[in-house]
Amino acid sequence: MLNRTSGPEILRLIDLLAKLPGLGPRSAKRAALHLLKKRDQLMSPLAAALADAAAKVDICRVCGNFDTVNPCSVCTAPGRDGAVICAVEEVGDLWAMERSGVFRGKYHVVGGTLSALDGVRPEDLNIASLVERAGATDVREVILALNATVDGQTTAHYITDRLAHLPVKVTRLAHGVPVGGELDHLDDGTIAAAMASRR
Amino acid sequence: MLNRTSGPEILRLIDLLAKLPGLGPRSAKRAALHLLKKRDQLMSPLAAALADAAAKVDICRVCGNFDTVNPCSVCTAPGRDGAVICAVEEVGDLWAMERSGVFRGKYHVVGGTLSALDGVRPEDLNIASLVERAGATDVREVILALNATVDGQTTAHYITDRLAHLPVKVTRLAHGVPVGGELDHLDDGTIAAAMASRR
Repeated sequence: MLNRTSGPEILRLIDLLAKLPGLGPRSAKRAALHLLKKRDQLMSPLAAALADAAAKVDICRVCGNFDTVNPCSVCTAPGRDGAVICAVEEVGDLWAMERSGVFRGKYHVVGGTLSALDGVRPEDLNIASLVERAGATDVREVILALNATVDGQTTAHYITDRLAHLPVKVTRLAHGVPVGGELDHLDDGTIAAAMASRR
Repeated sequence: MLNRTSGPEILRLIDLLAKLPGLGPRSAKRAALHLLKKRDQLMSPLAAALADAAAKVDICRVCGNFDTVNPCSVCTAPGRDGAVICAVEEVGDLWAMERSGVFRGKYHVVGGTLSALDGVRPEDLNIASLVERAGATDVREVILALNATVDGQTTAHYITDRLAHLPVKVTRLAHGVPVGGELDHLDDGTIAAAMASRR
Protein backbone atom coordinates (compact mmCIF):
# COMPACT_ATOMS: atom_id res chain seq x y z
CA MET A 1 0.00 0.00 0.00
CA LEU A 2 2.80 2.35 0.99
CA ASN A 3 4.54 2.12 -2.35
CA ARG A 4 1.63 3.88 -4.01
CA THR A 5 1.80 6.61 -1.36
CA SER A 6 5.51 7.30 -1.32
CA GLY A 7 8.56 6.45 -3.38
CA PRO A 8 10.47 3.14 -3.29
CA GLU A 9 13.33 5.02 -1.60
CA ILE A 10 11.23 5.42 1.56
CA LEU A 11 10.11 1.77 1.47
CA ARG A 12 13.71 0.60 1.17
CA LEU A 13 14.76 2.84 4.04
CA ILE A 14 12.00 1.41 6.28
CA ASP A 15 12.98 -2.15 5.31
CA LEU A 16 16.61 -1.56 6.29
CA LEU A 17 15.77 0.29 9.52
CA ALA A 18 13.51 -2.62 10.52
CA LYS A 19 16.60 -4.86 10.52
CA LEU A 20 18.16 -2.96 13.42
CA PRO A 21 17.80 -4.70 16.79
CA GLY A 22 15.10 -2.96 18.80
CA LEU A 23 13.18 -1.68 15.78
CA GLY A 24 10.24 -3.57 14.27
CA PRO A 25 8.31 -2.70 11.10
CA ARG A 26 6.13 -0.13 12.90
CA SER A 27 8.91 1.62 14.77
CA ALA A 28 11.06 1.55 11.61
CA LYS A 29 8.32 3.51 9.85
CA ARG A 30 8.21 5.98 12.70
CA ALA A 31 12.00 6.30 12.59
CA ALA A 32 11.90 6.86 8.81
CA LEU A 33 9.29 9.62 9.18
CA HIS A 34 11.36 11.21 11.94
CA LEU A 35 14.45 11.11 9.71
CA LEU A 36 12.55 12.60 6.75
CA LYS A 37 11.30 15.41 8.97
CA LYS A 38 14.82 16.12 10.29
CA ARG A 39 16.65 15.71 7.03
CA ASP A 40 19.43 18.23 7.62
CA GLN A 41 19.82 17.77 11.36
CA LEU A 42 19.67 13.96 11.45
CA MET A 43 19.17 12.09 8.18
CA SER A 44 22.16 13.43 6.25
CA PRO A 45 24.51 13.35 9.28
CA LEU A 46 23.46 9.75 10.00
CA ALA A 47 24.04 8.74 6.37
CA ALA A 48 27.51 10.32 6.55
CA ALA A 49 28.32 8.74 9.93
CA LEU A 50 27.31 5.29 8.66
CA ALA A 51 29.35 5.64 5.47
CA ASP A 52 32.28 7.01 7.50
CA ALA A 53 32.20 4.16 10.01
CA ALA A 54 31.72 1.55 7.27
CA ALA A 55 34.78 2.91 5.48
CA LYS A 56 37.08 3.47 8.46
CA VAL A 57 36.19 1.03 11.22
CA ASP A 58 38.08 -2.22 11.07
CA ILE A 59 38.24 -5.41 13.12
CA CYS A 60 41.41 -5.48 15.22
CA ARG A 61 43.63 -8.31 13.94
CA VAL A 62 44.90 -9.01 17.44
CA CYS A 63 41.83 -8.96 19.68
CA GLY A 64 38.77 -8.56 17.41
CA ASN A 65 37.67 -5.14 18.75
CA PHE A 66 36.17 -2.58 16.35
CA ASP A 67 38.39 0.46 15.82
CA THR A 68 39.68 2.83 13.17
CA VAL A 69 43.25 1.76 13.84
CA ASN A 70 44.52 -1.79 13.50
CA PRO A 71 45.70 -3.15 15.96
CA CYS A 72 43.07 -1.32 18.01
CA SER A 73 43.73 1.44 20.53
CA VAL A 74 43.22 -0.97 23.45
CA CYS A 75 45.85 -3.38 22.10
CA THR A 76 48.37 -0.59 21.55
CA ALA A 77 47.55 1.48 24.65
CA PRO A 78 50.67 2.06 26.76
CA GLY A 79 50.40 0.89 30.34
CA ARG A 80 48.01 -1.99 29.69
CA ASP A 81 49.20 -5.35 30.98
CA GLY A 82 49.68 -7.72 28.04
CA ALA A 83 50.26 -10.62 30.45
CA VAL A 84 46.53 -10.82 31.25
CA ILE A 85 44.03 -11.54 28.46
CA CYS A 86 40.31 -11.18 29.11
CA ALA A 87 38.24 -13.28 26.69
CA VAL A 88 34.74 -11.90 25.98
CA GLU A 89 31.96 -13.07 23.66
CA GLU A 90 31.30 -9.87 21.74
CA VAL A 91 32.72 -6.37 21.26
CA GLY A 92 29.78 -5.05 23.32
CA ASP A 93 31.08 -7.07 26.27
CA LEU A 94 34.55 -5.55 25.79
CA TRP A 95 32.93 -2.09 25.89
CA ALA A 96 31.03 -3.04 29.05
CA MET A 97 34.27 -4.20 30.73
CA GLU A 98 35.99 -0.96 29.70
CA ARG A 99 33.07 1.08 31.03
CA SER A 100 33.55 -0.53 34.42
CA GLY A 101 37.20 0.56 34.32
CA VAL A 102 38.39 -2.32 36.53
CA PHE A 103 40.47 -4.18 33.96
CA ARG A 104 43.82 -2.91 32.70
CA GLY A 105 44.93 -5.94 30.69
CA LYS A 106 44.11 -6.81 27.07
CA TYR A 107 41.14 -8.47 25.44
CA HIS A 108 40.21 -11.23 23.05
CA VAL A 109 36.80 -11.21 21.36
CA VAL A 110 35.75 -14.84 20.91
CA GLY A 111 32.93 -13.81 18.57
CA GLY A 112 30.07 -15.79 20.10
CA THR A 113 29.57 -19.11 21.86
CA LEU A 114 29.69 -22.72 20.82
CA SER A 115 26.21 -23.97 20.04
CA ALA A 116 25.21 -27.39 18.79
CA LEU A 117 21.73 -26.02 18.11
CA ASP A 118 22.91 -23.15 15.92
CA GLY A 119 25.79 -25.19 14.45
CA VAL A 120 28.55 -22.97 15.85
CA ARG A 121 31.78 -25.02 16.01
CA PRO A 122 35.11 -24.08 17.62
CA GLU A 123 36.57 -23.20 14.20
CA ASP A 124 33.77 -20.63 13.71
CA LEU A 125 35.03 -18.70 16.74
CA ASN A 126 38.31 -16.92 17.49
CA ILE A 127 39.51 -19.69 19.79
CA ALA A 128 42.61 -20.88 17.92
CA SER A 129 43.94 -17.32 17.91
CA LEU A 130 43.27 -17.05 21.65
CA VAL A 131 45.21 -20.27 22.31
CA GLU A 132 48.03 -18.93 20.17
CA ARG A 133 48.11 -15.61 22.06
CA ALA A 134 47.96 -17.44 25.40
CA GLY A 135 50.98 -19.50 24.31
CA ALA A 136 53.24 -16.43 24.16
CA THR A 137 55.90 -16.60 26.85
CA ASP A 138 54.81 -13.41 28.63
CA VAL A 139 51.11 -14.33 29.08
CA ARG A 140 50.35 -15.21 32.69
CA GLU A 141 46.55 -15.38 32.92
CA VAL A 142 43.47 -15.77 30.73
CA ILE A 143 40.23 -14.49 32.28
CA LEU A 144 37.15 -16.08 30.71
CA ALA A 145 34.54 -13.31 30.96
CA LEU A 146 31.94 -15.12 28.88
CA ASN A 147 28.27 -14.66 29.62
CA ALA A 148 26.82 -16.74 32.45
CA THR A 149 24.53 -18.61 30.03
CA VAL A 150 24.62 -22.35 29.28
CA ASP A 151 26.31 -21.72 25.92
CA GLY A 152 28.72 -19.21 27.46
CA GLN A 153 29.75 -21.64 30.17
CA THR A 154 30.07 -24.54 27.70
CA THR A 155 32.38 -22.37 25.63
CA ALA A 156 34.37 -21.42 28.74
CA HIS A 157 34.80 -25.14 29.55
CA TYR A 158 35.97 -25.85 26.03
CA ILE A 159 38.48 -22.99 26.06
CA THR A 160 39.77 -24.12 29.47
CA ASP A 161 40.46 -27.57 27.96
CA ARG A 162 42.22 -26.04 24.97
CA LEU A 163 44.44 -23.97 27.29
CA ALA A 164 45.19 -26.88 29.67
CA HIS A 165 48.58 -27.69 28.11
CA LEU A 166 49.84 -24.13 28.52
CA PRO A 167 51.48 -22.71 31.67
CA VAL A 168 48.79 -20.00 32.03
CA LYS A 169 46.30 -19.52 34.84
CA VAL A 170 42.71 -19.72 33.55
CA THR A 171 40.14 -17.88 35.69
CA ARG A 172 36.48 -16.96 35.39
CA LEU A 173 34.37 -14.06 36.64
CA ALA A 174 32.77 -14.82 40.02
CA HIS A 175 29.08 -15.62 40.19
CA GLY A 176 27.06 -13.91 42.89
CA VAL A 177 24.49 -11.34 43.83
CA PRO A 178 24.76 -8.23 41.58
CA VAL A 179 25.68 -5.14 43.57
CA GLY A 180 22.39 -3.39 44.37
CA GLY A 181 20.47 -6.54 43.46
CA GLU A 182 17.63 -7.87 45.56
CA LEU A 183 17.67 -11.53 46.56
CA ASP A 184 13.96 -11.79 45.87
CA HIS A 185 14.51 -11.06 42.18
CA LEU A 186 17.42 -13.47 41.69
CA ASP A 187 17.14 -16.98 40.30
CA ASP A 188 18.03 -19.99 42.45
CA GLY A 189 21.24 -20.69 40.53
CA THR A 190 22.66 -17.25 41.32
CA ILE A 191 21.73 -17.53 44.99
CA ALA A 192 23.30 -21.00 45.19
CA ALA A 193 26.49 -19.72 43.52
CA ALA A 194 26.64 -16.69 45.83
CA MET A 195 26.16 -18.96 48.85
CA ALA A 196 28.85 -21.41 47.71
CA SER A 197 31.36 -18.58 47.13
CA ARG A 198 30.51 -16.71 50.35
CA ARG A 199 33.37 -15.07 52.20
CA MET B 1 35.14 5.62 28.44
CA LEU B 2 34.15 4.39 25.01
CA ASN B 3 36.29 6.91 23.16
CA ARG B 4 39.42 5.29 24.50
CA THR B 5 38.13 1.88 23.40
CA SER B 6 36.94 2.72 19.89
CA GLY B 7 37.23 5.56 17.42
CA PRO B 8 35.21 8.79 17.48
CA GLU B 9 33.40 7.53 14.36
CA ILE B 10 31.64 4.84 16.42
CA LEU B 11 30.76 7.30 19.18
CA ARG B 12 29.27 9.72 16.67
CA LEU B 13 27.26 6.91 15.08
CA ILE B 14 25.85 5.86 18.48
CA ASP B 15 24.98 9.50 19.29
CA LEU B 16 23.02 9.88 16.05
CA LEU B 17 21.28 6.49 16.32
CA ALA B 18 20.18 7.42 19.85
CA LYS B 19 18.20 10.32 18.35
CA LEU B 20 15.87 7.95 16.52
CA PRO B 21 12.49 7.48 18.18
CA GLY B 22 12.41 4.11 19.92
CA LEU B 23 16.18 3.90 20.45
CA GLY B 24 17.83 5.04 23.68
CA PRO B 25 21.59 5.24 24.40
CA ARG B 26 21.83 1.51 25.22
CA SER B 27 19.85 0.25 22.24
CA ALA B 28 21.71 2.70 19.99
CA LYS B 29 24.96 1.06 21.08
CA ARG B 30 23.49 -2.36 20.35
CA ALA B 31 22.31 -1.14 16.94
CA ALA B 32 25.76 0.30 16.19
CA LEU B 33 27.44 -3.02 17.08
CA HIS B 34 24.93 -4.88 14.91
CA LEU B 35 25.66 -2.51 12.02
CA LEU B 36 29.42 -2.89 12.44
CA LYS B 37 29.05 -6.66 12.42
CA LYS B 38 26.90 -6.57 9.27
CA ARG B 39 28.84 -3.94 7.43
CA ASP B 40 28.24 -5.15 3.89
CA GLN B 41 24.72 -6.53 4.35
CA LEU B 42 23.29 -3.66 6.41
CA MET B 43 25.57 -0.75 7.28
CA SER B 44 26.61 0.30 3.78
CA PRO B 45 23.11 -0.28 2.27
CA LEU B 46 21.55 1.78 5.09
CA ALA B 47 24.05 4.59 4.56
CA ALA B 48 23.20 4.57 0.85
CA ALA B 49 19.43 4.39 1.45
CA LEU B 50 19.60 7.34 3.85
CA ALA B 51 21.69 9.43 1.47
CA ASP B 52 19.40 8.45 -1.40
CA ALA B 53 16.21 9.35 0.48
CA ALA B 54 17.76 12.60 1.79
CA ALA B 55 18.65 13.59 -1.77
CA LYS B 56 15.48 12.50 -3.55
CA VAL B 57 12.55 12.67 -1.14
CA ASP B 58 10.76 16.00 -1.16
CA ILE B 59 7.79 17.50 0.66
CA CYS B 60 4.79 17.69 -1.70
CA ARG B 61 4.03 21.37 -2.33
CA VAL B 62 0.31 20.62 -2.56
CA CYS B 63 -0.45 18.31 0.36
CA GLY B 64 2.74 17.99 2.44
CA ASN B 65 3.28 14.24 1.84
CA PHE B 66 6.84 12.89 1.47
CA ASP B 67 7.60 11.61 -2.04
CA THR B 68 10.27 11.60 -4.72
CA VAL B 69 7.96 13.44 -7.13
CA ASN B 70 6.47 16.86 -6.46
CA PRO B 71 3.45 17.11 -6.41
CA CYS B 72 3.37 13.67 -4.79
CA SER B 73 2.00 10.50 -6.37
CA VAL B 74 -1.19 10.71 -4.29
CA CYS B 75 -1.92 14.26 -5.51
CA THR B 76 -1.34 13.31 -9.14
CA ALA B 77 -2.90 9.83 -9.05
CA PRO B 78 -5.62 9.49 -11.68
CA GLY B 79 -9.01 8.50 -10.33
CA ARG B 80 -8.66 10.19 -6.95
CA ASP B 81 -11.44 12.61 -6.06
CA GLY B 82 -9.99 16.11 -5.73
CA ALA B 83 -13.34 17.36 -4.40
CA VAL B 84 -12.72 15.73 -1.02
CA ILE B 85 -9.69 16.73 1.08
CA CYS B 86 -8.75 14.74 4.16
CA ALA B 87 -6.71 16.80 6.63
CA VAL B 88 -4.31 14.79 8.79
CA GLU B 89 -1.75 15.81 11.41
CA GLU B 90 1.33 14.03 10.09
CA VAL B 91 2.52 12.08 7.06
CA GLY B 92 2.33 8.92 9.19
CA ASP B 93 -1.42 9.51 9.52
CA LEU B 94 -1.71 9.86 5.74
CA TRP B 95 0.07 6.51 5.38
CA ALA B 96 -2.28 4.96 7.95
CA MET B 97 -5.32 6.24 6.00
CA GLU B 98 -3.87 4.87 2.75
CA ARG B 99 -3.17 1.54 4.40
CA SER B 100 -6.85 1.26 5.31
CA GLY B 101 -7.67 1.82 1.63
CA VAL B 102 -11.06 3.40 2.37
CA PHE B 103 -10.35 6.93 1.19
CA ARG B 104 -10.02 7.84 -2.48
CA GLY B 105 -9.85 11.62 -2.18
CA LYS B 106 -6.79 13.79 -1.59
CA TYR B 107 -4.92 14.78 1.55
CA HIS B 108 -3.57 17.78 3.38
CA VAL B 109 -0.87 17.33 6.03
CA VAL B 110 -1.46 19.98 8.69
CA GLY B 111 1.97 19.30 10.20
CA GLY B 112 0.98 19.02 13.86
CA THR B 113 -1.56 20.53 16.22
CA LEU B 114 -2.06 23.92 17.80
CA SER B 115 -0.59 23.97 21.27
CA ALA B 116 -0.44 26.88 23.67
CA LEU B 117 1.95 24.87 25.82
CA ASP B 118 4.44 24.18 23.04
CA GLY B 119 3.87 27.57 21.41
CA VAL B 120 2.49 26.17 18.16
CA ARG B 121 0.42 28.88 16.48
CA PRO B 122 -1.83 28.60 13.39
CA GLU B 123 0.86 30.18 11.21
CA ASP B 124 3.26 27.39 12.23
CA LEU B 125 0.94 24.82 10.64
CA ASN B 126 -0.24 24.29 7.05
CA ILE B 127 -3.66 25.73 7.78
CA ALA B 128 -3.65 28.78 5.47
CA SER B 129 -2.81 26.51 2.54
CA LEU B 130 -5.66 24.16 3.52
CA VAL B 131 -8.13 27.08 3.59
CA GLU B 132 -6.83 28.18 0.21
CA ARG B 133 -7.24 24.67 -1.28
CA ALA B 134 -10.72 24.36 0.26
CA GLY B 135 -11.66 27.66 -1.43
CA ALA B 136 -11.20 26.18 -4.93
CA THR B 137 -14.54 25.95 -6.72
CA ASP B 138 -14.50 22.18 -7.12
CA VAL B 139 -13.84 21.28 -3.46
CA ARG B 140 -16.97 19.86 -1.82
CA GLU B 141 -15.84 18.45 1.52
CA VAL B 142 -12.99 18.69 4.02
CA ILE B 143 -12.64 15.69 6.35
CA LEU B 144 -10.77 16.56 9.55
CA ALA B 145 -8.99 13.30 10.40
CA LEU B 146 -6.94 14.78 13.22
CA ASN B 147 -6.07 12.66 16.24
CA ALA B 148 -8.72 12.34 18.93
CA THR B 149 -6.52 14.14 21.46
CA VAL B 150 -7.29 17.46 23.16
CA ASP B 151 -4.81 19.30 20.93
CA GLY B 152 -6.07 17.48 17.83
CA GLN B 153 -9.67 18.39 18.57
CA THR B 154 -8.76 22.01 19.40
CA THR B 155 -7.04 22.23 16.05
CA ALA B 156 -10.05 20.68 14.32
CA HIS B 157 -12.29 23.32 15.94
CA TYR B 158 -9.98 26.09 14.80
CA ILE B 159 -9.85 24.77 11.22
CA THR B 160 -13.66 24.44 11.18
CA ASP B 161 -13.91 28.13 12.12
CA ARG B 162 -11.43 29.12 9.41
CA LEU B 163 -13.45 27.18 6.82
CA ALA B 164 -16.85 28.53 8.00
CA HIS B 165 -17.05 31.23 5.31
CA LEU B 166 -16.54 28.71 2.49
CA PRO B 167 -19.30 26.63 0.86
CA VAL B 168 -17.61 23.33 1.82
CA LYS B 169 -18.92 20.62 4.08
CA VAL B 170 -16.58 20.07 7.07
CA THR B 171 -16.77 16.59 8.63
CA ARG B 172 -14.83 14.64 11.23
CA LEU B 173 -14.06 10.96 11.75
CA ALA B 174 -16.64 9.25 13.98
CA HIS B 175 -15.74 8.38 17.54
CA GLY B 176 -16.67 4.93 18.76
CA VAL B 177 -15.55 1.49 19.78
CA PRO B 178 -12.56 0.30 17.69
CA VAL B 179 -13.43 -2.77 15.62
CA GLY B 180 -12.27 -5.75 17.66
CA GLY B 181 -11.97 -3.57 20.77
CA GLU B 182 -13.27 -4.67 24.14
CA LEU B 183 -15.51 -2.32 26.11
CA ASP B 184 -13.68 -3.15 29.30
CA HIS B 185 -10.46 -1.66 27.96
CA LEU B 186 -12.00 1.56 26.63
CA ASP B 187 -12.06 4.89 28.42
CA ASP B 188 -15.34 6.47 29.46
CA GLY B 189 -15.16 9.22 26.83
CA THR B 190 -15.03 6.67 24.00
CA ILE B 191 -17.91 4.66 25.42
CA ALA B 192 -19.97 7.82 25.87
CA ALA B 193 -19.23 8.88 22.27
CA ALA B 194 -20.06 5.42 20.95
CA MET B 195 -23.32 5.45 22.87
CA ALA B 196 -24.28 8.94 21.66
CA SER B 197 -23.60 7.98 18.02
CA ARG B 198 -25.30 4.58 18.26
CA ARG B 199 -27.30 3.45 15.25
